[in-house]
Amino acid sequence: MPKSAIESLLTISIARDSDVPLHKQVFEEIRQTILSGRLVTGAPLPSSRMLARELAVSRNTVLTAYDMLASEGYTDAARGSSTRVSAVLPEMLQYADASHERAHTLNRRPKLSSLVDRLPVRYKRSEQGITAFQYGVPELRDFPFTQWNRLLNRFWRHPPREVMMVGDPAGYLPLRRSIAAYLRAFRAVNCHEDQVIVTSGAQQGLTLASRVLLDPSDTIWLEDPGYPGLRQAVEGAGAKSVGIPVDDEGLSVEAGLKLAPNARAAAVTPSHQYPLGVTMSLGRRLALLDWADRYDGWIIEDDYDSEFRYAGRPLSAMQGLDRSGRVIYVGTFSKIMFPTLRIGYLVVPPDLVDPFLRVRRAIDDHPPITAQPALAAFVEEGHFASHIRRMRALYGERQQILLAALQEHLTGALEFASSEAGMHLCCGLSPALSAMTTDSHIAKMAGAANVVTMPLSEFHTSTPARAGLALGYAGFDEKQINTGAQKLARVMDTITA
Amino acid sequence: MPKSAIESLLTISIARDSDVPLHKQVFEEIRQTILSGRLVTGAPLPSSRMLARELAVSRNTVLTAYDMLASEGYTDAARGSSTRVSAVLPEMLQYADASHERAHTLNRRPKLSSLVDRLPVRYKRSEQGITAFQYGVPELRDFPFTQWNRLLNRFWRHPPREVMMVGDPAGYLPLRRSIAAYLRAFRAVNCHEDQVIVTSGAQQGLTLASRVLLDPSDTIWLEDPGYPGLRQAVEGAGAKSVGIPVDDEGLSVEAGLKLAPNARAAAVTPSHQYPLGVTMSLGRRLALLDWADRYDGWIIEDDYDSEFRYAGRPLSAMQGLDRSGRVIYVGTFSKIMFPTLRIGYLVVPPDLVDPFLRVRRAIDDHPPITAQPALAAFVEEGHFASHIRRMRALYGERQQILLAALQEHLTGALEFASSEAGMHLCCGLSPALSAMTTDSHIAKMAGAANVVTMPLSEFHTSTPARAGLALGYAGFDEKQINTGAQKLARVMDTITA
Repeated sequence: MPKSAIESLLTISIARDSDVPLHKQVFEEIRQTILSGRLVTGAPLPSSRMLARELAVSRNTVLTAYDMLASEGYTDAARGSSTRVSAVLPEMLQYADASHERAHTLNRRPKLSSLVDRLPVRYKRSEQGITAFQYGVPELRDFPFTQWNRLLNRFWRHPPREVMMVGDPAGYLPLRRSIAAYLRAFRAVNCHEDQVIVTSGAQQGLTLASRVLLDPSDTIWLEDPGYPGLRQAVEGAGAKSVGIPVDDEGLSVEAGLKLAPNARAAAVTPSHQYPLGVTMSLGRRLALLDWADRYDGWIIEDDYDSEFRYAGRPLSAMQGLDRSGRVIYVGTFSKIMFPTLRIGYLVVPPDLVDPFLRVRRAIDDHPPITAQPALAAFVEEGHFASHIRRMRALYGERQQILLAALQEHLTGALEFASSEAGMHLCCGLSPALSAMTTDSHIAKMAGAANVVTMPLSEFHTSTPARAGLALGYAGFDEKQINTGAQKLARVMDTITA
Repeated sequence: MPKSAIESLLTISIARDSDVPLHKQVFEEIRQTILSGRLVTGAPLPSSRMLARELAVSRNTVLTAYDMLASEGYTDAARGSSTRVSAVLPEMLQYADASHERAHTLNRRPKLSSLVDRLPVRYKRSEQGITAFQYGVPELRDFPFTQWNRLLNRFWRHPPREVMMVGDPAGYLPLRRSIAAYLRAFRAVNCHEDQVIVTSGAQQGLTLASRVLLDPSDTIWLEDPGYPGLRQAVEGAGAKSVGIPVDDEGLSVEAGLKLAPNARAAAVTPSHQYPLGVTMSLGRRLALLDWADRYDGWIIEDDYDSEFRYAGRPLSAMQGLDRSGRVIYVGTFSKIMFPTLRIGYLVVPPDLVDPFLRVRRAIDDHPPITAQPALAAFVEEGHFASHIRRMRALYGERQQILLAALQEHLTGALEFASSEAGMHLCCGLSPALSAMTTDSHIAKMAGAANVVTMPLSEFHTSTPARAGLALGYAGFDEKQINTGAQKLARVMDTITA
């Protein structure tokens, strides 16, 4: 237990016959007491009168020392209340400065892993807040937070001790059960709750899958254009990814075998291709499953955005067609609940459960408990399904609003059509516009005018076959959508002027 | 939207002139409707009378078909309420069985990454629940869950929309601030909140550090005996770890340079060595920092268990002595809050913040929001510090109780001494006992008698210099400790009989 301030300071030694002035000695001794940690942040200094008496020096001596401590930043001088030891000491600031300086002397810094260099700066979210037409923004103004809070409260009032103590690397069982039931009922995923692994968002699911399936010498087919986060998860496993062009039926095995015949895995977004939005045809799905069987391959199915389908029959997950246990299914709650909840899931073939759990344990042991019981209840008690239904209706309307706005303001600039599903529209550039500029340039100009668009060319790894813009609509109301379209039209006018 | 059950079943086609009996046709058609997903889990079958009328067959025909569906497991027959489609269909079970079978035919399963083979089965927690003397169990019966729940509630009543939408890969700023303030005040860690990264427990912190600092070709010194989770985090980065023997001053640079002169990093637990409990002397700390400077090395400091110190001055973190920005500091809330909270933190040198955040984004984007605001308030408002104080006093008492119990019951079998800090005692085996048996054998026999002990030899990677048992005491009251000691004594009697 640290001594009290007075006790610590009673050990100060003052040498009366020294050349060093008394006030300077007192200053230095107190400074050392602070630096050594014997006087901690926030600890009050004793009154100058009391310390002077204890040290048998004049009160002025102590007051001068105190003034020096305050002016150099060791204490916060608060008039009328006691002086306290500062949180940020001058030495810390110097250290931080010096570290920054040293950081610029490259040969003084030990090297970092090569992974750090391979990871590009991730696509930055707009810094302009939640603005049309930012991708991936759900409508949260209607989210039932009161209900959510109630469910959190219900568990945390009396949390069972074992649940506080021991974590299951696969995740909280009631949540796994709810997820399995939901997936079987609504996505035709074949699974028992023991095949479900709760992850920190889909990103961790993709990372885990990459680590379990791929060695650094392995190659995986990724859709091109595709999801950058997936490429980074693969990089993280040290493996090589090869971009396979996507057409209007999705990824083709033929193309994959031409470009990378020795691939050991493929990652696809069959329900709603990211970012183009195409649905992988049944023929292509069966071809990929057949490839996995013949070539001993694995398939990672990222089933993002599948809940918001506005037309056509709800499509089963590809995993439901898998008869050889080759599909690793990845899902997330981010777009239906809220993004920072950071809960996703994997469904893995039964014989992969143990390898996945062993790798997961090594990475971060088990998922955090805090939200899992509330989420299990949220799904179990029907709030999840009814929120999806409400949002599906709302997002469908908003797509119509966006289409109308594009029709009204951007017909000459963009080529667009309705989308069967999802939270964003992919628009091509009109031939005239394509001849004049790039989608990246448009996106930059639009950004400056506070309209957020995602240039499709930036999601290609090989030469882009198409330029275009992805416009998210789900999180924005009619006014925001119309205003956004008008602004974008003005940006186009500026460009084509 | 899926059709209603009746709509789906109206499309059943019955061929009256077929050789196949009508009831079998009806059975088969309904079965296919279920398998195709048109009738989903939990969907109720229509009444037999209604379906019979629609299909123009006898009611008996339909009832027989329904009985067959129930007996084969396609429906759950609940008398008095409607029959519903089963969640787990026979095909799924077959699939699961077949997958299991296929898993045993090694050449039918594509290979997994070599990482999977390198990860050993992790040291299993006792399956006997929370029993003396399990390691790492804090006392939760006194944890202020009411307060915790109140703080969760305070945030989740009205969560700000931006906080729901965009996550900071470093973690929620108010929490980072609380952590930085706590570390500066109580652990003499030099840090600004921008150097703090919130992680999913210390395990993720160790994983992240390994991924940022180490390539597969790199070597890192680990303490031997040491923390298995650390070795797995290093394995996960594909790097090589070399165990450096620990003596009563901790890890020695001399030993490290002999065994692995080209190491690029070292990971230590200087406050309270895991599992032996020694404190790394100041001399050894400075030597390691000097080594890092001269040899361009990194140091990972795992500051676990440092809060519970019962004697001696509180020790500063090694990071506080670091003048060259080489120390990556890892901490956790698990043992002070509760283990499944799964929140830990890293403090990294300022120039490493960006590499760490980029790697973190690729792995799992950002930490989950749910508990972070409540935890920030818990620390900020003093509940954290006062809980530590209470637990420190309690654990100090419990150590005394354990020592007395060991004195009374196990003097001939074990060698033990008080420990300055931590939540467990390391006991050596008496020479007589060592001659007769191993610590692993004792641990196994004790486990069978419902006493949990951790055999120290299993934490060595090289030939163990010492055998012994680690006994956790923090989470157990006087009765449990005494009972545990008595049982352990009887186990010893059995062994030495």
